[in-house]
Amino acid sequence: MSIQSTNHCSVAVYPGTFDPITMGHIDIVERSLNLFNKVIIAVAVNASKTPAFTLKERVKMIEDTFKDYSRIEVHSISGLLVEFAHQQKATIVRGLRAVSDFEYEFQLALMNRKLEREVDSIFLMPSFRWIYISSSIIKDAALNGGDVSDMVPFHVNEMLMKKFPTSQNPR
Amino acid sequence: MSIQSTNHCSVAVYPGTFDPITMGHIDIVERSLNLFNKVIIAVAVNASKTPAFTLKERVKMIEDTFKDYSRIEVHSISGLLVEFAHQQKATIVRGLRAVSDFEYEFQLALMNRKLEREVDSIFLMPSFRWIYISSSIIKDAALNGGDVSDMVPFHVNEMLMKKFPTSQNPR
Amino acid sequence: MSIQSTNHCSVAVYPGTFDPITMGHIDIVERSLNLFNKVIIAVAVNASKTPAFTLKERVKMIEDTFKDYSRIEVHSISGLLVEFAHQQKATIVRGLRAVSDFEYEFQLALMNRKLEREVDSIFLMPSFRWIYISSSIIKDAALNGGDVSDMVPFHVNEMLMKKFPTSQNPR
Amino acid sequence: MSIQSTNHCSVAVYPGTFDPITMGHIDIVERSLNLFNKVIIAVAVNASKTPAFTLKERVKMIEDTFKDYSRIEVHSISGLLVEFAHQQKATIVRGLRAVSDFEYEFQLALMNRKLEREVDSIFLMPSFRWIYISSSIIKDAALNGGDVSDMVPFHVNEMLMKKFPTSQNPR
Amino acid sequence: MSIQSTNHCSVAVYPGTFDPITMGHIDIVERSLNLFNKVIIAVAVNASKTPAFTLKERVKMIEDTFKDYSRIEVHSISGLLVEFAHQQKATIVRGLRAVSDFEYEFQLALMNRKLEREVDSIFLMPSFRWIYISSSIIKDAALNGGDVSDMVPFHVNEMLMKKFPTSQNPR
Amino acid sequence: MSIQSTNHCSVAVYPGTFDPITMGHIDIVERSLNLFNKVIIAVAVNASKTPAFTLKERVKMIEDTFKDYSRIEVHSISGLLVEFAHQQKATIVRGLRAVSDFEYEFQLALMNRKLEREVDSIFLMPSFRWIYISSSIIKDAALNGGDVSDMVPFHVNEMLMKKFPTSQNPR
Repeated sequence: MSIQSTNHCSVAVYPGTFDPITMGHIDIVERSLNLFNKVIIAVAVNASKTPAFTLKERVKMIEDTFKDYSRIEVHSISGLLVEFAHQQKATIVRGLRAVSDFEYEFQLALMNRKLEREVDSIFLMPSFRWIYISSSIIKDAALNGGDVSDMVPFHVNEMLMKKFPTSQNPR
Repeated sequence: MSIQSTNHCSVAVYPGTFDPITMGHIDIVERSLNLFNKVIIAVAVNASKTPAFTLKERVKMIEDTFKDYSRIEVHSISGLLVEFAHQQKATIVRGLRAVSDFEYEFQLALMNRKLEREVDSIFLMPSFRWIYISSSIIKDAALNGGDVSDMVPFHVNEMLMKKFPTSQNPR
Repeated sequence: MSIQSTNHCSVAVYPGTFDPITMGHIDIVERSLNLFNKVIIAVAVNASKTPAFTLKERVKMIEDTFKDYSRIEVHSISGLLVEFAHQQKATIVRGLRAVSDFEYEFQLALMNRKLEREVDSIFLMPSFRWIYISSSIIKDAALNGGDVSDMVPFHVNEMLMKKFPTSQNPR
Repeated sequence: MSIQSTNHCSVAVYPGTFDPITMGHIDIVERSLNLFNKVIIAVAVNASKTPAFTLKERVKMIEDTFKDYSRIEVHSISGLLVEFAHQQKATIVRGLRAVSDFEYEFQLALMNRKLEREVDSIFLMPSFRWIYISSSIIKDAALNGGDVSDMVPFHVNEMLMKKFPTSQNPR
Repeated sequence: MSIQSTNHCSVAVYPGTFDPITMGHIDIVERSLNLFNKVIIAVAVNASKTPAFTLKERVKMIEDTFKDYSRIEVHSISGLLVEFAHQQKATIVRGLRAVSDFEYEFQLALMNRKLEREVDSIFLMPSFRWIYISSSIIKDAALNGGDVSDMVPFHVNEMLMKKFPTSQNPR
Repeated sequence: MSIQSTNHCSVAVYPGTFDPITMGHIDIVERSLNLFNKVIIAVAVNASKTPAFTLKERVKMIEDTFKDYSRIEVHSISGLLVEFAHQQKATIVRGLRAVSDFEYEFQLALMNRKLEREVDSIFLMPSFRWIYISSSIIKDAALNGGDVSDMVPFHVNEMLMKKFPTSQNPR
């Protein structure tokens, strides 16, 4: 067992589709800022399912959300996440909300370690009140006219109302 | 949203019964050393189930395991874990191996946040090869004469063989 | 804690895609009739995945199934389910069969409560013999020529055989 | 398929060990009052694990909690729950919080139906903020000096502090 | 990749506490007889929890159950199961009923492979109607006077009624 | 209870999409060869999701993998799997890796038994080192340029690199 050096805690990569960014994502980013000097939000380009917002829209919404934060960067990544994390000498951060999340995350983390030994993954839990929200459940509600204004930042809610006009109707 | 300061990454508390410490625990400690300046291993005094090893034995086995590490401390704690973590300005570190782990850890982390807002929990995944081991499954195997010498440090294996004499029998 | 009034137990809303209705769905409806004066079956219009049967076909199959029941209504709904339930002063009823059901239902119920405080959800368990069936597993079997005649009402089986001609072939 | 009569919604039995009663239990009772005319809280006598509070103490804490409710009864039961529910022509009510809850509840409900065909079980979800609490996690926290005063009624907290004197110490 | 020889399918070891044997266990044994020439039922001596029936009683109940079967043996084993299976050149057979079963079985099977490379484990699913029963849920019902006569063989039911006299009372 | 005859252990059917075949699949096939005289790999034609490789490509990759095995057959099947297994007097073999696998497999096995009483299913666990891999996670990695050469046979890796040209780029 070797004795570890201490030049750590520098960079986290927080990957996702962010379609769109939610209060739950923001919560994880803020917890990451307590553990790391820099947090890179890595927006996946080629998500398997078609996103509701374009890559450009998704990146813009995140940049607007964190425009007052100096220790956050937003990147869009098209290749292998773990490769990107390796280049940045970063630790991968993932949020955990549910048992079903967990099992997929587990498999992914094992695959990532296999592809790149030196990159590790850590898991954070969002604040209790965000545990039941996800981008897809929010989109579903918005699409059907539900009021999701306290689950996403103000400007994201605006985007959702523009994207899903039914949500503009008075309830 | 406030902008976070950067005096972080200092201390982790890694709590458990460690009855006895396994290669899986050691793996989590080493991953924690990559993220934190100091790791405090917090050995629970009043475990609900009767441990096979006394508190003193469990602490001694951990101290022997990490005697060459300068950034590790071993404490036995009898009160509220989250209170202890708060006093140490520490983040709680937990290892995740299985879905059943996950749900309990989740509930515990929520309770801890409720009791002490300022202490956060992070979850790490041990190396793939330690995912199926646990103190209890190792004790069970040792009790029945199984060879667990590569799942625990050498001196812990010695302790197990003394505690469960059947394991001394040649296989 | 306020003391509750007793004008309750009136209406249940049982939402779903019902593509097609199965013996499992019918079982849940009958259990709901033991608890509520009226049960509204709410057929979702805009299911995210393309259904095998049109909305009109799905509603028709349900109406035919319950044509002898006086306390059942069939509606197709296009907006927010919880809004509809609120207008009807109804409780949402959901069937639970499996762990994976459960987690999604849980998240959905929390979201619904968030969107509309006054609507509650209750969960019922279908009869043991229907636990392993679902619309999708039945469609899969029918598509491949499996005999599903005792898992759906007679007229639904007719519809399935018309939709998936292979199931007409003698086995 | 027979057409159901309407003399329903009368009685619910809510069984448990209630060691002690928590805000989560109270929440489930109140939701049950919205669905049933009478709710019988059935306190299990012979719990397999030794409870921290005697049967008498547990019943007393529940009676004190609901002393202003006219539609609630508290019984201690020693025989088969489903037999008791059958005598009362009642539906069994259970709270669901977690995946692990769910699987056990499922198995229990199937067993109960097997033992007594005419008694059904329904599942309710407590309010979001009580999802992470349980009698055992509360006792664990109280035992170690944690402040659980907002997770149980006032008089139950008093009982906990008497039972676990460490929790009287100032934090 | 080596080409496998064909002298297989000889022996299965089906381990458990069998406290007492149930129709679910019998079902798994019969399925095993379709796959293996001989099935050894291995009754665990040193179960961690105190069994309701002595080892002698448990073995006797199993022997009586299978007295007309020529290809079944009943052994009580005190050492390492996988060691025993290795000596018998046997495959370990386990029944799976629920998600919670599965995770524990998984961990156990991995540990067994680690301890003894040449012994493999296979998993069978009991008949649908036995999926919700287990020795412990049956004992619980019997203890409280429930009728479990169709979930265990006749002579096991007799033993249960002798052990838990309340179950002798007329219902 | 009838006494079973012994003309068993002949044939296994191992069904799947195999898009593409992985080391995990090969592991399950080899374990099946220890239990059965013949193993038929049944490649599903009409997978609900569009496969990355054509049926012809998938069958070819499997045939090339097992070209030196005399007791293996590769079939493509378009009808009901359980019907095919019945014609072959075969037992269905499935690999289990994760809790989420398990629940789906369970439901499927129950449905299969319902459709064809005489066909049984058994579950095997792949070697520990293949537990985290699946066709889809491998395709995902390959698509993004990850090196998956030790998770699939050599010729399958060649096919993946041809299919997803980004993976040809030097890392």
